[in-house]
Amino acid sequence: MINPKDIWRDVQKIRNEAPLVHNITNYVVMNTTANALLAIGASPVMAHSIDEVEEMVSIAKAVVINIGTLSKHWIEAMHKAVSTAKKLNIPIVLDPVGAGATKLRTQTSHDLIHTALPTIIRGNASEIRALYHAEGETKGVDSLHSSEEAIEAARQLSNKFGCAISISGEVDVIVKDSYTIKVANGHPLMPRVTGLGCTATAITGAFAAVNPSPLLAAANAMAVMGIAGEIAAEKSNGPGTLQLHFIDALHQLTEDDIIKRLRLN
Amino acid sequence: MINPKDIWRDVQKIRNEAPLVHNITNYVVMNTTANALLAIGASPVMAHSIDEVEEMVSIAKAVVINIGTLSKHWIEAMHKAVSTAKKLNIPIVLDPVGAGATKLRTQTSHDLIHTALPTIIRGNASEIRALYHAEGETKGVDSLHSSEEAIEAARQLSNKFGCAISISGEVDVIVKDSYTIKVANGHPLMPRVTGLGCTATAITGAFAAVNPSPLLAAANAMAVMGIAGEIAAEKSNGPGTLQLHFIDALHQLTEDDIIKRLRLN
Amino acid sequence: MINPKDIWRDVQKIRNEAPLVHNITNYVVMNTTANALLAIGASPVMAHSIDEVEEMVSIAKAVVINIGTLSKHWIEAMHKAVSTAKKLNIPIVLDPVGAGATKLRTQTSHDLIHTALPTIIRGNASEIRALYHAEGETKGVDSLHSSEEAIEAARQLSNKFGCAISISGEVDVIVKDSYTIKVANGHPLMPRVTGLGCTATAITGAFAAVNPSPLLAAANAMAVMGIAGEIAAEKSNGPGTLQLHFIDALHQLTEDDIIKRLRLN
Repeated sequence: MINPKDIWRDVQKIRNEAPLVHNITNYVVMNTTANALLAIGASPVMAHSIDEVEEMVSIAKAVVINIGTLSKHWIEAMHKAVSTAKKLNIPIVLDPVGAGATKLRTQTSHDLIHTALPTIIRGNASEIRALYHAEGETKGVDSLHSSEEAIEAARQLSNKFGCAISISGEVDVIVKDSYTIKVANGHPLMPRVTGLGCTATAITGAFAAVNPSPLLAAANAMAVMGIAGEIAAEKSNGPGTLQLHFIDALHQLTEDDIIKRLRLN
Repeated sequence: MINPKDIWRDVQKIRNEAPLVHNITNYVVMNTTANALLAIGASPVMAHSIDEVEEMVSIAKAVVINIGTLSKHWIEAMHKAVSTAKKLNIPIVLDPVGAGATKLRTQTSHDLIHTALPTIIRGNASEIRALYHAEGETKGVDSLHSSEEAIEAARQLSNKFGCAISISGEVDVIVKDSYTIKVANGHPLMPRVTGLGCTATAITGAFAAVNPSPLLAAANAMAVMGIAGEIAAEKSNGPGTLQLHFIDALHQLTEDDIIKRLRLN
Repeated sequence: MINPKDIWRDVQKIRNEAPLVHNITNYVVMNTTANALLAIGASPVMAHSIDEVEEMVSIAKAVVINIGTLSKHWIEAMHKAVSTAKKLNIPIVLDPVGAGATKLRTQTSHDLIHTALPTIIRGNASEIRALYHAEGETKGVDSLHSSEEAIEAARQLSNKFGCAISISGEVDVIVKDSYTIKVANGHPLMPRVTGLGCTATAITGAFAAVNPSPLLAAANAMAVMGIAGEIAAEKSNGPGTLQLHFIDALHQLTEDDIIKRLRLN
């Protein structure tokens, strides 16, 4: 359902249009995700003050909300950002970092979804399962194997909310309605770099800014993440050098890289 | 008006005196600007609490205020920092990040300038134009070409406030009173790294700590930024590796690099 | 008292158990310390909200508190984190960044220690001396040479609080009760990278999670920091590249590296 030509078209659109992607994200990864957005060709902005968030959203082409380091005022700003984005029909990408680890994170994810339905939710399997359980729908998926369980949880969440769900893992699985796309690119060293999951979310925001299909935007973004990660890993001796070569790889990505490397499952 | 010998003298002073540069800056670039200040030889400190900002300013040799990620408490601390610095005659460098993009940013920049006149304002052309318009002086520059307009806006702001204005761009333009210095160093890859503008502001703080002329401190800082960026770009495959080689280049900078590379317009 | 075999055993334990290390740390270094923890094999989490800090501490194997960028709400969360950790018998590592530079920092360090005695305090010589003086015990050490003075201050603090004190410097000195361990590894370029002191504190948290001896956990951590720093420096042209090679070196560290390089004084 996804193919190199369409992925490349999205990359070129991002490079040509340099869409403004407004991020309310966590302190740990702000620098990393801003650099990744610049490297793929988008224009990142980080702004969290309740006093400017509405205005900033209104000039953005996508809004990325990442709950990695929460506090009261930031949660208020996140709600204002997503409700403004919804009103203006700007795509919203939500990363429920750590949902399931603390009540605050699970509850905040739930609340944000119910303030304004995201276009795409991107998380790992355990976060997606936590969102599912937070909806009070605890039956029917627990008996499955953990990765199958997350996919089934994603499908039910997608049906309920009408959004695409992007589950990152060894194989990334992107779900919407009855569609499932599995992207097998990536490298085992990638999870040893902090914030590459958050970077996937930010990059998904850039693709959502240029591709009207939530399913394809999410899948194309994960393909590019995985391909750039593979290119970077081949030049790296560890997670320190991987981080940089990954940014370089996003910047230098060619259609040929995508054609040669894309692996769907 | 600037020359390699004087730039090198400032670099050596920074390395010998390791001036404490106090930054209230945005979350995205804190790590980057701290590393750049260390690499050029200064001592960075980041502190934003209203409960310590006065004490911290009083031991600093320069104060750098960057409004990249604002919130209410930080704005209060910024006002306290600049008024303390002014009282103690410590140079203030202001970076009005995103002035013009939201009212909060334009207003905060305006307010900070009126709390305590900065020694140097460093921004890009659109931020400088936004500051100019925020002063209610909307006539006379709009008809010019965009870069000429920013220079004219800078000149009028400099006359009004008595400070130097440093406009970064393909050619950096530094203005004070009737003086104009144009530095043509730099590399097109530099704007693809997040926070190199903010880094220019921080480095300008280091130069302001050792050079009593706001005009020359600002210009020498931009020359060093551009030269280090060129050296780094020659070794880099993209913005990821550029970021590191840039820090290394600041650390290793020699008089010879400056003599060979300085390009004034 | 420390030896390569035991250091290596701790490294392997960290890699096998991937202990969750909960950090409330400063904005400047969050990314760096998270990456260092991942590179050594631990699982970092950063969370500062008073609304989740108790829950997050309860699932952690060590708590790291670093006061590098303070504000009111963060201080409240730090107190809640350390008192929860103490109740649950989870090791606490405190980094009193800038104690002595402002009253807020000295006072906050003092208050945190008195809320819950840390397992390990890690700072530089001047911070340790500042803590000592904050206890009102200003006699007896001032006449000594500065490094001797810090060691004597550390010994008295260790006796009073029952914790290990780790003083970083050209030679790292780790003190508990009557024991003193001196680690001579490291490289002069390391202090030119922002946050390597904070990284030492975070890595100390990872070792405290797997080694029940505060003295040995602190000393083994400093040995690994120094050795990784040396390996990295040999491949680096400045502090920019050092930062990455350091992360790679933590990731690739072998028993042989430790055997060949460990230098005790």
